[in-house]
Amino acid sequence: MTAVAPSLVITGETRLYAFLGHPVGQARTPHLINPMFRARGVDAVMYAADVAPADLDAAVAGFKAIRNLDGLVVTVPHKAAIVKHADTVLTAGREVGAVNILRREADGRWTADMLDGFGFVNGMRARGHEPAGRSFLMLGAGGAGAAIAHAVAGAGARRITVFDVDDGRAAALVRRVSQAHPLVCVEVGAPVPDGHDTVVNCTPLGMKADDPLPIDPATLGPGLLVIDIIMKPPVTRLLKEAAARGCAVHEGAHMLDGQIGAFVTFFLG
Amino acid sequence: MTAVAPSLVITGETRLYAFLGHPVGQARTPHLINPMFRARGVDAVMYAADVAPADLDAAVAGFKAIRNLDGLVVTVPHKAAIVKHADTVLTAGREVGAVNILRREADGRWTADMLDGFGFVNGMRARGHEPAGRSFLMLGAGGAGAAIAHAVAGAGARRITVFDVDDGRAAALVRRVSQAHPLVCVEVGAPVPDGHDTVVNCTPLGMKADDPLPIDPATLGPGLLVIDIIMKPPVTRLLKEAAARGCAVHEGAHMLDGQIGAFVTFFLG
Repeated sequence: MTAVAPSLVITGETRLYAFLGHPVGQARTPHLINPMFRARGVDAVMYAADVAPADLDAAVAGFKAIRNLDGLVVTVPHKAAIVKHADTVLTAGREVGAVNILRREADGRWTADMLDGFGFVNGMRARGHEPAGRSFLMLGAGGAGAAIAHAVAGAGARRITVFDVDDGRAAALVRRVSQAHPLVCVEVGAPVPDGHDTVVNCTPLGMKADDPLPIDPATLGPGLLVIDIIMKPPVTRLLKEAAARGCAVHEGAHMLDGQIGAFVTFFLG
Repeated sequence: MTAVAPSLVITGETRLYAFLGHPVGQARTPHLINPMFRARGVDAVMYAADVAPADLDAAVAGFKAIRNLDGLVVTVPHKAAIVKHADTVLTAGREVGAVNILRREADGRWTADMLDGFGFVNGMRARGHEPAGRSFLMLGAGGAGAAIAHAVAGAGARRITVFDVDDGRAAALVRRVSQAHPLVCVEVGAPVPDGHDTVVNCTPLGMKADDPLPIDPATLGPGLLVIDIIMKPPVTRLLKEAAARGCAVHEGAHMLDGQIGAFVTFFLG
């Protein structure tokens, strides 16, 4: 007999968690996390709230005013802007300068962290791609690139090359990762995979159908693992081109799947 | 074969409604309304938010900042304080000076109304107690008393006597109801049922186990309908005393049951 998850019923006793982004129509987190609350016997629900950047401060003040609201999961474009609303930012959040989860402590203070990097590493491992010992070419040094570069450095990457159209941003990320992980070889470089076994697209290129590719596909070939963190479309044009050239590929959804369990643990202990 | 309501699943596309009170642990509205959304095929969810009076303005600004949040149901102690957050207040809300529901219009403005009186009248009718032609003794001239006095006057009550420990408050309510419903006999009076067929407790007396009764039970007897609007406990000591003396009784839950459908109509049209 198959166990049937108890169905979601919201009462006055239900604890609240909000998922915060703009837009949120594509959000999968509430749908994934709510059954996990129920499976743990916790009377809690997460709902997705669409909040524009100009309204972020008012929205967060509103969430904090709700006494039975215990936490937030945060996505684009709020991950950096919401940091100032946290009283305590844990290590990964401090390294990256951005967070994607906040919880209310028993004393009413708010603790935040950035779990994207953990989710990325966990998602790689879940698909049999151990990051330790790998040589990564990272495309994009924005918030996602920063979270992932720190996380793969912490997970034992051998080498990390960072490319960004903004040289200064790439250099700044390389400096921060090197300081935090002095044993890893981290440097700024060109978007060419030579000498690397793993390419990660952390740019937004690929969300729109007519975006250019973030790397010349002629440089891709067998033996290379190509990873995209874009979740929509699930298989980007980059991944299609890479697969057609004999690369192993890894989709953006794995980064979220790799951290949903960590969201629940962060909230409930 | 019994039709099974589709189970509640929250996605990024789900529209939001909040139930707002302090406390909210006893709230039944989300539990009652969510299956009605689903029965209408509407991807929407209501959650209960516990907001203290000092935090009301911040909470409402936060709700308004959520673009996929379309409405609020409001309970004690916020029904009067939230009026200023509405751009338009419909007739019942204006009469009472308090509202219990707000919706966002297509143009972004907020419309509010007070449906407690409608729910009270509808709840009486659902239990076979037609308010038209009745002579009401109303105990309590606060927000709930005001909503109910206006509604039973509008539903054709023959006579309404209002008692409140604050004489001035009773007189002010009588004046407002008389202005709105000049054909109904409305007056201030003592908490004695003589000449009335219906007694309604709109005071908070009865929520706590050691509260005094809002009326001398020796004045109650057969032929009288005694109504309490307190929902917790479901059967108050007043109703027990009244039933023991041969009165018909009517519980507070019927007022909510009588307006849940109107909540959905107010939100969805």
